[in-house]
Amino acid sequence: MNAEIIAVGTEILLGDIVNTNSQFLAGRLADFGISLFHQSVVGDNPERLIKEFSDSFDRCDLIITTGGLGPTTDDITKEAASEFFNKPMVLDERSLKNLEAIFTKQGSTLSEGNRKQAYFPEGCTILPNDHGTAPGCMISKDKKTIIVLPGPPREVHPMFENYVVPYLKTLSDNVIVSKVLRVIGLGESLMASKVQDIIDKSTNPTVAPYAKQGESILRITARAKTEAQGFELIAPIEKKIRERLENAVYGTGDESIEAVIAGMLMDRHLTVSVAESCTGGMVSAKLVDFPGISEVFMEGAVTYSNNAKINRLGVKPEALKKFGAVSAETAMEMAAGIAKSSGTDIGLSTTGIAGPLGGSAEKPVGLVYIGLYINGNVKYIKANFPGTREMVRLRATIAALDLLRKELL
Amino acid sequence: MNAEIIAVGTEILLGDIVNTNSQFLAGRLADFGISLFHQSVVGDNPERLIKEFSDSFDRCDLIITTGGLGPTTDDITKEAASEFFNKPMVLDERSLKNLEAIFTKQGSTLSEGNRKQAYFPEGCTILPNDHGTAPGCMISKDKKTIIVLPGPPREVHPMFENYVVPYLKTLSDNVIVSKVLRVIGLGESLMASKVQDIIDKSTNPTVAPYAKQGESILRITARAKTEAQGFELIAPIEKKIRERLENAVYGTGDESIEAVIAGMLMDRHLTVSVAESCTGGMVSAKLVDFPGISEVFMEGAVTYSNNAKINRLGVKPEALKKFGAVSAETAMEMAAGIAKSSGTDIGLSTTGIAGPLGGSAEKPVGLVYIGLYINGNVKYIKANFPGTREMVRLRATIAALDLLRKELL
Repeated sequence: MNAEIIAVGTEILLGDIVNTNSQFLAGRLADFGISLFHQSVVGDNPERLIKEFSDSFDRCDLIITTGGLGPTTDDITKEAASEFFNKPMVLDERSLKNLEAIFTKQGSTLSEGNRKQAYFPEGCTILPNDHGTAPGCMISKDKKTIIVLPGPPREVHPMFENYVVPYLKTLSDNVIVSKVLRVIGLGESLMASKVQDIIDKSTNPTVAPYAKQGESILRITARAKTEAQGFELIAPIEKKIRERLENAVYGTGDESIEAVIAGMLMDRHLTVSVAESCTGGMVSAKLVDFPGISEVFMEGAVTYSNNAKINRLGVKPEALKKFGAVSAETAMEMAAGIAKSSGTDIGLSTTGIAGPLGGSAEKPVGLVYIGLYINGNVKYIKANFPGTREMVRLRATIAALDLLRKELL
Repeated sequence: MNAEIIAVGTEILLGDIVNTNSQFLAGRLADFGISLFHQSVVGDNPERLIKEFSDSFDRCDLIITTGGLGPTTDDITKEAASEFFNKPMVLDERSLKNLEAIFTKQGSTLSEGNRKQAYFPEGCTILPNDHGTAPGCMISKDKKTIIVLPGPPREVHPMFENYVVPYLKTLSDNVIVSKVLRVIGLGESLMASKVQDIIDKSTNPTVAPYAKQGESILRITARAKTEAQGFELIAPIEKKIRERLENAVYGTGDESIEAVIAGMLMDRHLTVSVAESCTGGMVSAKLVDFPGISEVFMEGAVTYSNNAKINRLGVKPEALKKFGAVSAETAMEMAAGIAKSSGTDIGLSTTGIAGPLGGSAEKPVGLVYIGLYINGNVKYIKANFPGTREMVRLRATIAALDLLRKELL
């Protein structure tokens, strides 16, 4: 089967945001043996979108759209699909009830625009949105299908995995199984260089790398008669990849780095606290992403000023003066200081120059020290991260979490 | 004039890399008054690319392509343009000499594939590549033009700015100017309901709303003979929108909420510290996104446990016992506690139930209290945020920053 992807929205068409949805969907379609020869982007214009449906269906049988499901009159994707297939828009009571529940909880009432989000082309399959107000839908006629997804990536990914994948699986006699390996501490290109030959040589299973917020994932996808046979095909490739990447593979599937760390801390009955300078709270915030973290994460300190490092963490003024705030010594004193003052087994710290200003020949932008105190011992790592302020801080956050993880292995 | 962008390459089509070139080009085309109604992505296939040229020229007069200029036989963009316009490929001696110079410098010699990079459709304008081996070109026939650019963004951006922009400037009598208003504290649909009639009635300038990570933006875009005339068209619409949205408009253009807050704090010579529970460091991290924040932001505390709230912030154990960690009283004690212990003028705090567990009938998931201490006075706001753990925390972060901003207005 051939498919095409149409991203709908002036914000993508005019370059306000980058089209990551199409990248995500393109990567996933291949996993189900669906060929993709064309992607397009159109604005919030019903006539042009309907023409695009028509042109696209000359080349394929399945269209996946993203965007244009919001509450404003600019949001026209469902309406255009309804017109294209000549199916009237009808109210879905269940979607309306869900919307009302969301708004009641917020203490507000539904606007006319939000009510629109509960209308769908007659006879379609509704795709629930567990992360936003706009459900998607699947509409078919004469062996042509349009799958309508929302715009925000954090809504698109779970809706696709939970409600579109089961449909795509029915399109083929084969079952498709996949396993995700989660990789940390290697850049995307370094990871690729270690496993590129495996990626290139693999046809069934296929191996596809993705980069994601400072981490990388490798998705291994097999096609087989049964699930068990699929996983049998995956096993040797997974083994080979793990041998190459060693302990950079920190988890599988949906496991997050914070969940893996929380699990290791709980198993070992260890508690942690965090002292941050350049990352400014990102390490703590990432740990707190894990709902059960309160058992093991006690406290974080964002000691951005030297005074805070001295008063809050007990960093020695002489150390700050002699070595500077961005130094191995300060990183180690910060880690020991937060652990001792919080009464935790482990203290984790970051200090660095995130830029764009503040760099020197000796201490350039991107220089980051990460300190780790654990049960009386203290160590540090030094790194030079490339990229913008945001990227330096993100990479420092990931590196700090990875240092803690490796220590706990 | 209407233009379209075609990205050529299997790596974008199949989702191996994200299509940032199209975003860049889309954003820049608008600056030259060139309308863009369509973008597409096709693979390294000459027949499909030629068909795409043909379909695209039914809708526009200018196509910009990226990718497919490399040395391999997969790279077919110039060749497809040559065939489409029926102009033979001819050797450009100057490009060949440049290529030879690059390879000599590297200590290697030209491959047959690299020689291909010095061939161009007869009569085209060659666009030098100052950052790679593949020059681009501009080819015209019968008032239709294809501008062929390379794939790597670091080659595309300078080639576009240095060699394409001078050409684009000659095309249009009109300029397009736009102004972005940044809105906080109103959801996308609430914002839209306040200005929907303005959005609907506006043709020149147009008004378009977008949602972005808990904030919203409104882009007002005008077409006129000169920049000054464009901004004259924008001014009355901007005034009308600001009257409707009142102080929810916090900035314009690329201004971030953290930059606006930092500016207000600096102007008033005020310092701030932050104590976070449910947001777990996100408020501090957002403030630290602004490079100059160190002048006014002293310290953050992630007091996730009750002990940390007591020991670090001086929250009274009785208050925690009587009202609970998620309460107005605790939020206010946290805000006052962090300000006093950090010696700052302002203390900002968050405490809430981010979920998915931990909610009750009385205190449901999504309940958040935000405390603000400023120069001896303390206040709080209470909110019920919908959505996942991630969304509750993001919304609480934005609400905390917005409370501080409004206090400083």
